[in-house]
Amino acid sequence: MKNSTKLLAALACCTLLGTAHAEGPFRNTDNKNLKDVSEGTYPVPYKMPVVAEITEQLNRIRAYMDHATPTRVVNKKTGAPITDFKTPVADAAFAEAAGDYGIMVYEMGVVHAGLLRAAEATGDKNFTAMTKRHFDFFGQTLPYFRAQEAKFHLERQNSFARFIDPRSLDDTGSMCAALMRAKAAKIGPDLKWMIDSCNDWVANKQFRLADGTMARKRPQAVSLWGDDMYMSIPALAEAGRMTGERKYFDLAVANVLGMSERLYNPQLNIFTHGWHEHVPNSPRFYWARANGWAVLAMSDLLDVLPKDHPGYDKVLNQLRGAIKGISELQSGTGLWHQMIDRNDSYLETSASAMFTYVIAHAINQGWISPTTYGSIAQAGWVGLTTKINDKGQVEGTCVGTTLASDQVYYYNRPTSVHALHGYGPVLLAGAEMIKLLKNPNVSVEYKLRTYHYQPKDGGKTDYREHQ
Amino acid sequence: MKNSTKLLAALACCTLLGTAHAEGPFRNTDNKNLKDVSEGTYPVPYKMPVVAEITEQLNRIRAYMDHATPTRVVNKKTGAPITDFKTPVADAAFAEAAGDYGIMVYEMGVVHAGLLRAAEATGDKNFTAMTKRHFDFFGQTLPYFRAQEAKFHLERQNSFARFIDPRSLDDTGSMCAALMRAKAAKIGPDLKWMIDSCNDWVANKQFRLADGTMARKRPQAVSLWGDDMYMSIPALAEAGRMTGERKYFDLAVANVLGMSERLYNPQLNIFTHGWHEHVPNSPRFYWARANGWAVLAMSDLLDVLPKDHPGYDKVLNQLRGAIKGISELQSGTGLWHQMIDRNDSYLETSASAMFTYVIAHAINQGWISPTTYGSIAQAGWVGLTTKINDKGQVEGTCVGTTLASDQVYYYNRPTSVHALHGYGPVLLAGAEMIKLLKNPNVSVEYKLRTYHYQPKDGGKTDYREHQ
Amino acid sequence: MKNSTKLLAALACCTLLGTAHAEGPFRNTDNKNLKDVSEGTYPVPYKMPVVAEITEQLNRIRAYMDHATPTRVVNKKTGAPITDFKTPVADAAFAEAAGDYGIMVYEMGVVHAGLLRAAEATGDKNFTAMTKRHFDFFGQTLPYFRAQEAKFHLERQNSFARFIDPRSLDDTGSMCAALMRAKAAKIGPDLKWMIDSCNDWVANKQFRLADGTMARKRPQAVSLWGDDMYMSIPALAEAGRMTGERKYFDLAVANVLGMSERLYNPQLNIFTHGWHEHVPNSPRFYWARANGWAVLAMSDLLDVLPKDHPGYDKVLNQLRGAIKGISELQSGTGLWHQMIDRNDSYLETSASAMFTYVIAHAINQGWISPTTYGSIAQAGWVGLTTKINDKGQVEGTCVGTTLASDQVYYYNRPTSVHALHGYGPVLLAGAEMIKLLKNPNVSVEYKLRTYHYQPKDGGKTDYREHQ
Repeated sequence: MKNSTKLLAALACCTLLGTAHAEGPFRNTDNKNLKDVSEGTYPVPYKMPVVAEITEQLNRIRAYMDHATPTRVVNKKTGAPITDFKTPVADAAFAEAAGDYGIMVYEMGVVHAGLLRAAEATGDKNFTAMTKRHFDFFGQTLPYFRAQEAKFHLERQNSFARFIDPRSLDDTGSMCAALMRAKAAKIGPDLKWMIDSCNDWVANKQFRLADGTMARKRPQAVSLWGDDMYMSIPALAEAGRMTGERKYFDLAVANVLGMSERLYNPQLNIFTHGWHEHVPNSPRFYWARANGWAVLAMSDLLDVLPKDHPGYDKVLNQLRGAIKGISELQSGTGLWHQMIDRNDSYLETSASAMFTYVIAHAINQGWISPTTYGSIAQAGWVGLTTKINDKGQVEGTCVGTTLASDQVYYYNRPTSVHALHGYGPVLLAGAEMIKLLKNPNVSVEYKLRTYHYQPKDGGKTDYREHQ
Repeated sequence: MKNSTKLLAALACCTLLGTAHAEGPFRNTDNKNLKDVSEGTYPVPYKMPVVAEITEQLNRIRAYMDHATPTRVVNKKTGAPITDFKTPVADAAFAEAAGDYGIMVYEMGVVHAGLLRAAEATGDKNFTAMTKRHFDFFGQTLPYFRAQEAKFHLERQNSFARFIDPRSLDDTGSMCAALMRAKAAKIGPDLKWMIDSCNDWVANKQFRLADGTMARKRPQAVSLWGDDMYMSIPALAEAGRMTGERKYFDLAVANVLGMSERLYNPQLNIFTHGWHEHVPNSPRFYWARANGWAVLAMSDLLDVLPKDHPGYDKVLNQLRGAIKGISELQSGTGLWHQMIDRNDSYLETSASAMFTYVIAHAINQGWISPTTYGSIAQAGWVGLTTKINDKGQVEGTCVGTTLASDQVYYYNRPTSVHALHGYGPVLLAGAEMIKLLKNPNVSVEYKLRTYHYQPKDGGKTDYREHQ
Repeated sequence: MKNSTKLLAALACCTLLGTAHAEGPFRNTDNKNLKDVSEGTYPVPYKMPVVAEITEQLNRIRAYMDHATPTRVVNKKTGAPITDFKTPVADAAFAEAAGDYGIMVYEMGVVHAGLLRAAEATGDKNFTAMTKRHFDFFGQTLPYFRAQEAKFHLERQNSFARFIDPRSLDDTGSMCAALMRAKAAKIGPDLKWMIDSCNDWVANKQFRLADGTMARKRPQAVSLWGDDMYMSIPALAEAGRMTGERKYFDLAVANVLGMSERLYNPQLNIFTHGWHEHVPNSPRFYWARANGWAVLAMSDLLDVLPKDHPGYDKVLNQLRGAIKGISELQSGTGLWHQMIDRNDSYLETSASAMFTYVIAHAINQGWISPTTYGSIAQAGWVGLTTKINDKGQVEGTCVGTTLASDQVYYYNRPTSVHALHGYGPVLLAGAEMIKLLKNPNVSVEYKLRTYHYQPKDGGKTDYREHQ
């Protein structure tokens, strides 16, 4: 009986006419009037986020990540631990993490960024303990793996290959930014050799267009990837901050502008995933995560770019435009779709988290108004909370995805808790949401069943007609 | 067996590939060839509406409304009737209607508008009997509640507060327009004091921008609401007609233009719900009902605006643009979605009814062509008929909704037969559909399984190749 | 248990939050690593098409069509065969085909186009045996039906009416193009009388606008139909090729430009179904098949239009624009939706096939790059393969559809294996896909689980970072 009722509901919602109001599992707990017929139900826990709850959620993810990322060297054939770091062995390798959680992959650079922000937002240094552990391990094992390479020439098989023999922005940029941020925050050892290596790749060696825009020789001979905004710009920005040398900022700005010129759709205010030099006008694929990388990169740059840099306003305007476009495409769950402009593609966690972080961060930095955007960030966060499971895993993240040319590929990329891409962004989003809740320049009115974020200096509201 | 078949159908339609042609419950009864394989099935009763059927549907709603809206004064603590209107009592109040059907709320102003149109379209004065009953009651009880206020200072608790102590356009505009229309139609008593009170609020006292555009101090310090087009413009228009004073028309036109300048998206030809003065470029939310209020207000204004008014063509062009944009977003059921640009939000009745009315009315008034728009109005009406239940209740109407800043709120507003917002618009839509069917300047050809509305002077069609 | 699991899945996918990644029935068989967690499942057999498989699929359709289209004359009252072609009989008629597969209808003209292309692509003359059979039959029976007409004046009831008494572009254009193509390919008899008759209608007699754009007197007095691009332009193009007379090309080009001026939306890069002279700005309906006719017509024209014709570049640019717009609207199944801009309308086969053909053909002709477009064509084809059933029937094709004015009509047109509109396009698509796979100027890399089409001279890609 119950089943047939559900069945009818399922059928109803599948027909065109049946695009009816759906009952969700959540009722807003901020509305204490349980008889309020003007209060609906929600597919996500629509309510004011609470700092303690967010902190607990972030800690759950942190604990899971910490547990899932060993920092040990083993014989990759036998699994036996290797502790003698004096005699290189060809089969020595980093112990494999569960899932796809490599300790030196670009996604882990974002995790460190998230942990740093979480420590800042909560004041709890436990959040960066994992960063310290990983980076200490890098410092301890670098000489060993360099010696291994000199002796055995393992190339890609060397666990430290990304720094000993960097070949791409994926190898270098994100982790390089993380290393420089940790250095600035005095977390972990001095990893100058690593930083020099990755900075050199990003600033000097990566293949690029004549105007400096980072490019790849795949999948076409000369292709731009939106992802490379994040894979280069934050590292360049941090190098600029660390060294004080203007050239890094110049190249970072050049990449914001060069990428946006070719990937950004100024009608829709979103980015296509990629671009090919020999066919600049080909069909566009608005993959959500590429948009996430783009706005995250611009946000990271603005965090450190001197305000008197001639590119500052251009980057700020580009970021504002993209934030507006992205915000207008948020779904009715607070999350965003895999193809950001396609509501029949699945809801994707990593992009949703990057958007939530960047919107909240842009409010906190004063780049955009809390008005409207505060509610959008909050909605993003409550959507994301449904993706953090009891184990601290982040669900619903699209696995690694190449620059492709058909929607069948993009729509059907699987999601996995083992896709590391979601972890850093969710940490960032939660941390920034905490800062937003504590932001002294922002006030929130809960009125008429929803949330109205306002600038503190935005003037006085008046609900007299309702009293 | 039957269940599992349905189950498979449900599953199929949920998969991407399964966006297949769906069987609906209705077959077009105008197609008498039951073996016609080129005739499909429909989710709504796709067929030529019949005047007698529409009249019956309108009467059903009228009867329900009439029954559900008592006009009595009671002691709100004891429920006992109060008939002595000489001695004010603090607890005296209007008897509560079922649902949310307050007899003095703005939604009831639209119901009266619908009843007036239904009486015009059908020639049946029964339709305005309820209007007369309500307004007679206002005339009888006004002195009593004014005396109650003088003695007890109840403010918002006074049942007559909207006129004795108006505070908003919601309090005043819609009902004010209804009162003036009834006066023009000689229905009910002279309610000059009420009309003066509400007109004074709308024309002089409501908070507004420097250019006259009506504003609110919520949810931000200075916010525009699309809803306020209806809450002000029809009242101003009727005041202009009643008094002959140009200033009312000027202010009405200024509001069409001032609101459109800030809320209208000229690419999409639809209105965003609201606007905030300190962040004029924030993300937009295309709530269907706000679009309904906007086009209904412009239509009401054009009904009475002198053609030589300098704003006439501007208002007409603005209305035409919005009608085109709205028409292009009609769903495959004839109804429109809660977020008018989002086909994964639910189908909403009140907005669908306002659109259907305005499109049909604009044809009947000669503002737009019957070509194409006639079919769209008809499709809107057949969609709406599925929302009128046996009791005469209107289903699928979004409850009262504030100007919000996130899609989670808008997507998940509940619908209710107790949301009065749907009743007036459905009455309007049905009445205007009757007029369209009787319109001597419009002809309809039922050819090749669909309906072709044409202007009578549109030239001769020729189906010779099919004969 | 299994059922209730499915039920939950069905329910889940119906809720907003449930827009989750869905499991499809297909795994890419080109990925030999069955443990690859980065490989998803698909709703369609996402993989590199194989020439032998396509050939078998095309043969299956050909065999079905051949079987389903008798070429016999019968007494339509008794069903008895008529073999005496000397004495006209009033009841003599073409034997009826199964389904809606008339041997002289415009849809059959597309089938012949598809068969010709399939013969070219595969080198197998069996594909045109049916064309020969039909056209031989026309040659044998024409004198008989002309005599029947002279004697009995049957008008539309004469089986040969489309050529003896043509009345529309549907009667003439598509089959006329097929006859001229067969003549050029030396298939079947000399059908000069038929060709002269249909060419005269298309070039001289069809109702048209002053600028030459083909028009109809329905459903409004002067209406343009996007369909008529196909119903006129290919015939004009073939007449130009056959005769060498410039006037045919001029009129064909004029129709591309005249139709595009009125039907093409340059923001969306797609065509609305139709246009009415007295209301040029009415709401638009982006019916997919009309877009199919439009691009197929332009493609057919470019195949024969001299490159030095002053309209060549205009037609090419118009085709390129439409291909881009259409490509960007491909669904996550490779197919396209009935309303090409509406992802809640069903997936429609005939339009999807025309798009797939035109995209693949435009690559093969060098009009567009294989980059991106090659993957889109491939995705289209793998989507289409799910619509070819074991009997060789093509499923999911919208039946004959008139130029209408409401979405309820368009969304709910039934689909049928008896709708002939799908057969020719699927033959075309498969044949062109074979040519694309054999195209010496195109290379395909299967890398990182997807397909990268490249121009052979597009430079060298480099995946070194992955090795």
